[in-house]
Amino acid sequence: MTAQIDPFHAMTISTLAHRMIAEGRSVIHMEFGQPSTGAPAKAIAVAHHVLDTDGMGYWENPALKERIARHYLETYGVTIDPAQLILTCGASPAFVLALSCAFAPGARVALARPGYVAYRNTLKAMHMVPLEIACGAEERFQLSAAAIAAIEPAPDGVIVASPANPTGTIIAEDEMRAIVEVCRARGIRIISDEIYHGLSYVGQARSMLQDEPEALIVNSFSKYFSMAGWRLGWLVVPPALIAAARARMSNLFLTPPSLSQHAGLAAFDCRDELEGHIETYRRNRDLMLAALPTLGLTSIAPPDGAFYIYADIGHLTDDSLAFCTKLLEDTGVATAPGVDFDPVEGHRFMRFSFAVSTDRVEDAIARMIPWFAEQGARVAEAQPA
Amino acid sequence: MTAQIDPFHAMTISTLAHRMIAEGRSVIHMEFGQPSTGAPAKAIAVAHHVLDTDGMGYWENPALKERIARHYLETYGVTIDPAQLILTCGASPAFVLALSCAFAPGARVALARPGYVAYRNTLKAMHMVPLEIACGAEERFQLSAAAIAAIEPAPDGVIVASPANPTGTIIAEDEMRAIVEVCRARGIRIISDEIYHGLSYVGQARSMLQDEPEALIVNSFSKYFSMAGWRLGWLVVPPALIAAARARMSNLFLTPPSLSQHAGLAAFDCRDELEGHIETYRRNRDLMLAALPTLGLTSIAPPDGAFYIYADIGHLTDDSLAFCTKLLEDTGVATAPGVDFDPVEGHRFMRFSFAVSTDRVEDAIARMIPWFAEQGARVAEAQPA
Repeated sequence: MTAQIDPFHAMTISTLAHRMIAEGRSVIHMEFGQPSTGAPAKAIAVAHHVLDTDGMGYWENPALKERIARHYLETYGVTIDPAQLILTCGASPAFVLALSCAFAPGARVALARPGYVAYRNTLKAMHMVPLEIACGAEERFQLSAAAIAAIEPAPDGVIVASPANPTGTIIAEDEMRAIVEVCRARGIRIISDEIYHGLSYVGQARSMLQDEPEALIVNSFSKYFSMAGWRLGWLVVPPALIAAARARMSNLFLTPPSLSQHAGLAAFDCRDELEGHIETYRRNRDLMLAALPTLGLTSIAPPDGAFYIYADIGHLTDDSLAFCTKLLEDTGVATAPGVDFDPVEGHRFMRFSFAVSTDRVEDAIARMIPWFAEQGARVAEAQPA
Repeated sequence: MTAQIDPFHAMTISTLAHRMIAEGRSVIHMEFGQPSTGAPAKAIAVAHHVLDTDGMGYWENPALKERIARHYLETYGVTIDPAQLILTCGASPAFVLALSCAFAPGARVALARPGYVAYRNTLKAMHMVPLEIACGAEERFQLSAAAIAAIEPAPDGVIVASPANPTGTIIAEDEMRAIVEVCRARGIRIISDEIYHGLSYVGQARSMLQDEPEALIVNSFSKYFSMAGWRLGWLVVPPALIAAARARMSNLFLTPPSLSQHAGLAAFDCRDELEGHIETYRRNRDLMLAALPTLGLTSIAPPDGAFYIYADIGHLTDDSLAFCTKLLEDTGVATAPGVDFDPVEGHRFMRFSFAVSTDRVEDAIARMIPWFAEQGARVAEAQPA
C-alpha cells in the first residue's frame, strides 16, 4: 500500500490569504517560514551575468562546495572534505537524500513533537516509522539525551533540529554532547537539521558536526541567505556515505539549479546585507515578545533562533486551524496552526513567523490586540461565573 | 538495509573530459543528454525582469500549470485539469514522486533494457523491484504489449519511454494502444516518461494520456525547451492521485525554482527558436547516420526522436566503458558507455548524443573516422586468418 500522509494545513491558510488579497484585502503573511527580503544584491548581480553568458546545463558547482566546506571551518572549527557535500534543490530533498542513505523502509526514527511537519510526512512517505517524542514547554519543546535514552527498543535514527521549527529553541552545548553520547552508545544515527543556523539571538547554535562527525547535516540557502525560491540546499554526509549519497543525488535528483549555485556562492560575500536582516528579525522578535502578554499569550517557547514564536492558545480554543482561519478572515493576519507541527497537542498552539518587515509586524500586532481581546472576552463570557 | 545502487558511468567519462579540458585538450561533449543551446531568448529576458522585481519565495506558478494543461489540449487533444499537474525540480524528482504515489516498497515495476539508468536505480533506492525486460534490435529496443503480457505474475507497474533513452525509438500508435489494453487487463499502472516529446524526426510521438487517462506522465523543460540547468519539470497524475501527489510534493520537495517557473512560462512563446534547435538536431542526426557505416557501425536503433544514437560495438569490444574512455583519451570525443543503460548487454554498445552544434558533430565525425578504422584493424589483426 502506498503511504498515507497528511496535508500541510498552513497551505490552506495561505490559499485563503491569497484569495483575500485577490479580493483586495490587506494580508500580513506570518504563516510561512520564509524571509520577505529577496536574495542579497551581489547574488542577484551574479545571476544577471550568468543568464547572459552561460548555457546553464546540468551542473554541480565545485567552488560552492569548497566555499561551504570553508564555512564549516570558519564558523564551527570543523574540517570537512568538499566531497562530503551534496548540493541539493533545497533542504527538503536533502532530507529525503539523508533518509535514503541512512535508513531502509521500516526504520524507526525519533523526532520531537512539535516539529517540522515534513519530517513526519517524509518518513511516512518513505515507509519509515516516525517515533514522535512529546516535548513540552518544560523541555523547551526539544529532544533531550534522557528522552532518547528512554526509547525502547533503541531507534535506528533521530532527527535533531536546533534552532527548531516551530519553536526557535536551541539545544545547549552540554545537552548536544549528551545526545551524541547516548546515540553512540545505542547505535542511533543522527540527522541534524541546521537550516536555521545563522539566525540566532542568544549566541551561535552548535553544529552537530562539532560533536559527531558521523551525523548527516541538512542545510539550505532558504533562511539565513534569504533565497527560498532559488531552491538550493546541501547535505553533509560522513565519508562512508559519500558514494551512496552521490549515487542517489544523480539518480533521484540529478543536479540543483545552475543559476542558484552561482548566486549562492556570491551570497557568501554578502554578510553585511544578511546580518542586516537578522537585526530586523531581532527587532521583530522584541516587538512580538513585548506584545504577546497584551494578546493574553503568556505561555510561549523562548525563540532563541529562527524567526518563529510558538504560542499556547489553549485558553482560547481547542481547534487551532479554525482559530487561525478566523484570525486571518477577521484581521488579515495569516499564521500557522499548531496542528501542522503537533497532531496531538497542536490544536491548542499557533505559530507566528516574524520574517517580515518591522512595519508589518507592528501592523499585525495592532490588528491582533483588539481581536485577541474579543476572543478572550468571548471565552470569559462562555465560562460559568 | 539501505539500497545499493550503481554509479552513473557517463559521469566518469564526463569527469575525465573536464580534466582533459583543464589540461588544454579540445573535447566534444556527446556523453550527456542535454542541449548545448541555452534557454530561449524570451525566457532569459523574463528571468532578468523577475530577478529585479520579485523576492522569489516558495512559489508554485498557477499560470504555468494552466499553460501546460493547454499544451496537452493543443498538442494531443487531451483535456486535463491544471490540478492534475505537479510542478517539480526536473523530471528526476517527478519520477520519484510518481513512484511514491503509485507504489510501495516491494512493488515490481517492469521496464525496457536498455533504458535510462535512473529508472533502475531510483526503483532500487525506493526499495522497489525493477523487472528489466530485454529488448533487442528486433524489438527496436522497446517494450511491447506481448512482452508485458508475458511477465508472470503481473507486475504492479510499467515504465514506458517514447522516444526512449538511449535509443530514441518511438512506440507506434497501435502498439501504444495494445500496451494500454494489456496493462488494463492485468491491473498494471503505467508511468510514461515523455521527456523527449517535441524532439521527433518521424512525426509527433503519442502521449500515453491519449490512450490512458490513469497513467502518470513525467516531462520537463530540460530537452525540447533547452533548459536543463533550470531544473523544472512536471508530473501529470490522474484525479484520484492528486491529493497524494500534492502532499508528497510539499513535504519531499516543497516547490520548484521560482525563476524557472517564470521563465518556463515564457518558453512556451518561443516555438520558432526551439523549432530551430530541432532542425539542428535533424541535420546532426543525418550527418551521424551517414557517417556511422564509415565508422563500421552498422547495427543501430533507428533514432526516431530524442538526440541519441545507440550503436552496437560488439565487433570492436566487450568493455564499452574502456572503449569510450579510450575514444575520449585519443580523440577528445566524449560518449556514454552502454553499460549505463543495460548492465547485461551494454558492454557491447555505446550512445552518441548529438545535441551539440552541427560543426561539433562534423568535427567529432572527422576525429572518429581514423580512430574507428584503427580499432577495426586491430581487431582484424588479432583474429586468426
